[in-house]
Amino acid sequence: MKIALCQIDTTVGDFAGNARKIVEFGQRALAAGAELALFPELSVCGYPAEDLLLRPAFKARHDVALAEIAAALPAELPVLVGCLESAPGPAGRALHNAVALVHGGEWRIVARKSLLPTYDVFDESRYFEPWPTPEQNLVQIGGTKFGVVICEDGWNDAEFFEQRLYGLDPVERVVAAGAELVVNLSASPWAAGKVAFRGRMVEAASRRHGVPMIYVNLVGGDVELQFDGGSLAVQPTGAAFQPVVFEETMQIVDTSETWSERVAELPRVETHHRAIVQGIAAYVQKFGFDRVLVGLSGGIDSALVVTLAVDALGADRVAGVAMPSEFSSEHSVADARELAENLGIEFHVLAINELQSAFDATLLPLFRDTEFGVAEENLQSRIRGTLLMAYANKHGHLLLTTGNKSETAIGYCTLYGDTNGALAPIADLWKTEVWELSRWLNRDRVRIPQNSITKPPSAELRPDQLDTDSLPPYDVLDPVLLALIEEHRTVADVSAATGMPVEDVARLDALIQNSEFKRYQYAPTLRLSERCWRGRRMPVSHRFRDA
Amino acid sequence: MKIALCQIDTTVGDFAGNARKIVEFGQRALAAGAELALFPELSVCGYPAEDLLLRPAFKARHDVALAEIAAALPAELPVLVGCLESAPGPAGRALHNAVALVHGGEWRIVARKSLLPTYDVFDESRYFEPWPTPEQNLVQIGGTKFGVVICEDGWNDAEFFEQRLYGLDPVERVVAAGAELVVNLSASPWAAGKVAFRGRMVEAASRRHGVPMIYVNLVGGDVELQFDGGSLAVQPTGAAFQPVVFEETMQIVDTSETWSERVAELPRVETHHRAIVQGIAAYVQKFGFDRVLVGLSGGIDSALVVTLAVDALGADRVAGVAMPSEFSSEHSVADARELAENLGIEFHVLAINELQSAFDATLLPLFRDTEFGVAEENLQSRIRGTLLMAYANKHGHLLLTTGNKSETAIGYCTLYGDTNGALAPIADLWKTEVWELSRWLNRDRVRIPQNSITKPPSAELRPDQLDTDSLPPYDVLDPVLLALIEEHRTVADVSAATGMPVEDVARLDALIQNSEFKRYQYAPTLRLSERCWRGRRMPVSHRFRDA
Repeated sequence: MKIALCQIDTTVGDFAGNARKIVEFGQRALAAGAELALFPELSVCGYPAEDLLLRPAFKARHDVALAEIAAALPAELPVLVGCLESAPGPAGRALHNAVALVHGGEWRIVARKSLLPTYDVFDESRYFEPWPTPEQNLVQIGGTKFGVVICEDGWNDAEFFEQRLYGLDPVERVVAAGAELVVNLSASPWAAGKVAFRGRMVEAASRRHGVPMIYVNLVGGDVELQFDGGSLAVQPTGAAFQPVVFEETMQIVDTSETWSERVAELPRVETHHRAIVQGIAAYVQKFGFDRVLVGLSGGIDSALVVTLAVDALGADRVAGVAMPSEFSSEHSVADARELAENLGIEFHVLAINELQSAFDATLLPLFRDTEFGVAEENLQSRIRGTLLMAYANKHGHLLLTTGNKSETAIGYCTLYGDTNGALAPIADLWKTEVWELSRWLNRDRVRIPQNSITKPPSAELRPDQLDTDSLPPYDVLDPVLLALIEEHRTVADVSAATGMPVEDVARLDALIQNSEFKRYQYAPTLRLSERCWRGRRMPVSHRFRDA
Repeated sequence: MKIALCQIDTTVGDFAGNARKIVEFGQRALAAGAELALFPELSVCGYPAEDLLLRPAFKARHDVALAEIAAALPAELPVLVGCLESAPGPAGRALHNAVALVHGGEWRIVARKSLLPTYDVFDESRYFEPWPTPEQNLVQIGGTKFGVVICEDGWNDAEFFEQRLYGLDPVERVVAAGAELVVNLSASPWAAGKVAFRGRMVEAASRRHGVPMIYVNLVGGDVELQFDGGSLAVQPTGAAFQPVVFEETMQIVDTSETWSERVAELPRVETHHRAIVQGIAAYVQKFGFDRVLVGLSGGIDSALVVTLAVDALGADRVAGVAMPSEFSSEHSVADARELAENLGIEFHVLAINELQSAFDATLLPLFRDTEFGVAEENLQSRIRGTLLMAYANKHGHLLLTTGNKSETAIGYCTLYGDTNGALAPIADLWKTEVWELSRWLNRDRVRIPQNSITKPPSAELRPDQLDTDSLPPYDVLDPVLLALIEEHRTVADVSAATGMPVEDVARLDALIQNSEFKRYQYAPTLRLSERCWRGRRMPVSHRFRDA
């Protein structure tokens, strides 16, 4: 049986666009000889629709779109597509996360999701009623009995996972109920290492249950979440189709053949690049902007962000502005200019000295007899943020903010200053990963000036300032922050594992917690790890200190 | 039997402080003759602890605190206190939201929460494993069989609620299992109308089941959520103790007596006042700040915020700054000054004309041959926001932002400008409610200048600008926004209900949705309604339009 894996990029709430795409892919699948086409979870409405799911008008429009899709798809091709269904119970949430079989101009629901992810960035218990009987998720198509599960339903195998969130395994249930092949329709966002992990998980399930598993995933950027696609087809022997990542694509797999590949993952640095480039392009396009703007300090973070923006949009849709002050080093503007020339982007220099003087004069009645300190440091950052927003507002640019995960973690940034921006492309990338990706971008030719990569990091907000004045070097800092933030480890554990004294780890832990208010107001951040800011929900203010 | 309702104010993660308070209230309860003392949900760790609950160090510290509480409470007094328990199952979340009976220097878990609110601001499915058998939540104390439920467990009565989120009613279960009295330990945040609603709900349950119901609730501000306490005791006849709201208190109820009151609620405008005042005071105190700062435009929003700040903190801990521009009306500074004098607060005037000129000069290469527009309007707001942050950083003030719900809803505000601030005290108050509360604050004497209340609202960012240039009057606007945002009603419904043409409602709906990116970066907002910004989780970017 020839099955089309339709790895599509949907847009939340774009019912007409999503329907058009589903119909177009269905036509292509039929033309390619497919006898069944599979589409990702919630393809009709897009994912994640969040509280739009609470609006009755959203569900009503969805129902119209599903009927239109059924009418427009080729009648002879059976199609499984992720959609919404009203949950009719006397109590509970109003919706199921469901799958429709569309065939012959009609549709009917053939599967509902049982396991609702409610952790990290996922909030599905907020919207959906869980389906208690996944063994009913069976459908006969072309003589084969298909078990149909939805995303998280496939992530609870008792043999594969050491820790399980749910007592129920829908895959086990559909196989026990007679499924000869299991398909998983997903909207599973990417994070570093996820393609290989999914491959191992699907392989293990296929081997354990002795049936082929086909996994079809969403692709494309939805603000923060980056879907990689990475759709899979695996036979019990482990033979697979190689997944295609970060591309909208249709693959045809023939279940009567023996597949020959194994699931492999691109190097992490390359997937970081593809995820961020997809994220910037999608955000700009879905937000309806034409161009982006980046403040260029001559440092590595802004150099990386603007280079990624060029890769996402092309040089003619990117502008950079350098804003030197009296504390800026000589090389700051020179490095920024060299970068802009390397990339071929529009570039401006706006010195901020006169604005600093004007603020000093205006603030004099309130600042008299005080010493230069945090207020004056932040002021420079806010002058720059205000200039960037003025330029962005005037010429219709979308401003990108350039913070990395290390500095965002400890609050080494100025709210309403350098944090200004509609999107944070690298705030889920540790500083050490920023260097790694920057070097990789220079692998064929120098795009980011070597000096931006090699010079010691500095905010340049007072004379001769260096990040290492107040922080350990990043190769020491990053593993500690990662263990505290991504792994929730105790201060004592982290100290033992890294060799950093307990009091120093505790101080970093306190810095993380004391800067929660900055992250509360931080820009949407492209998610690149299993614990991005959006997926971490900490009280803005609390008194807990570990050690 | 004499039962102490200990309506306490806990702090998230302040294990030592919470333990001290629980012990102190226990001692007071014993001294007052109580034979049982009741404390709110999760009193040991504070509520809501959010992702701190995922940190093993947090649970470990909690366990130490619970043991300390058991050792320090008077041994002869039985105490029921909300706490955490490890959920030992082979699958599922790591924790139960539980209740411990502390008695004789020891403690044991006697109840676990079954219904986990996962909507609005609540995310309990993210942290807790639900308890499937609430009929086991029974404990014999002093000859009486108590049924113990936890907050949401009491909010699912099939006769009281038309729409139920859960199939299970823990109150029904404990009564069926023999409970002679039901206690509900809660952390239920306030919203307008909630005290009366809870009263009706608890009365209905008591009447239906024929047993007294005692409801003990948390009080105090936790960043955005405002807990009112409002603890209740109701007999099946409807006789009650009158709840005390927005105050830490201990009430003793005697179950052998017949109570004589009915639950009533203060007028809405007065509870708005108490909730906001509590919220400002708690935030400033829990964040460790001493003073707050407010930018004073002469308009009603900033006048209200600064007056509320004075009520929360006292005049000597509040400062105001007026920042007139060339577009400011004559009365702007005069009204701001009169307000500051009425309140007796520190007051400064910083004209921004020179800063505007300096920005114009610096931006000239990028702005040449363009017309005055949104960029220039926003620039004024950002100059002001930058001045306020400079002053706040220099002198250790916490900046309050003054936006109301109407303007925050439609994005009538400048990100990184007037939205700057660590807390938004009135961003969950419609503009019409802003006027209502302002008039109420003037009920005895004029505090807010009459002119600030009566003059037509204006952002004063260009000559002769009025809010009504681009918006309907607020008494027309607010009901439409409320129906769209708080009630999720369709554009067609709202049009029919309000008489506003469909295309105008649709335009407002689009404004709401197009400004989602501003709210993503908005300040923490005191929650005053059942649908505050924090409890509304919309995609930053999507394509759904209703009509």
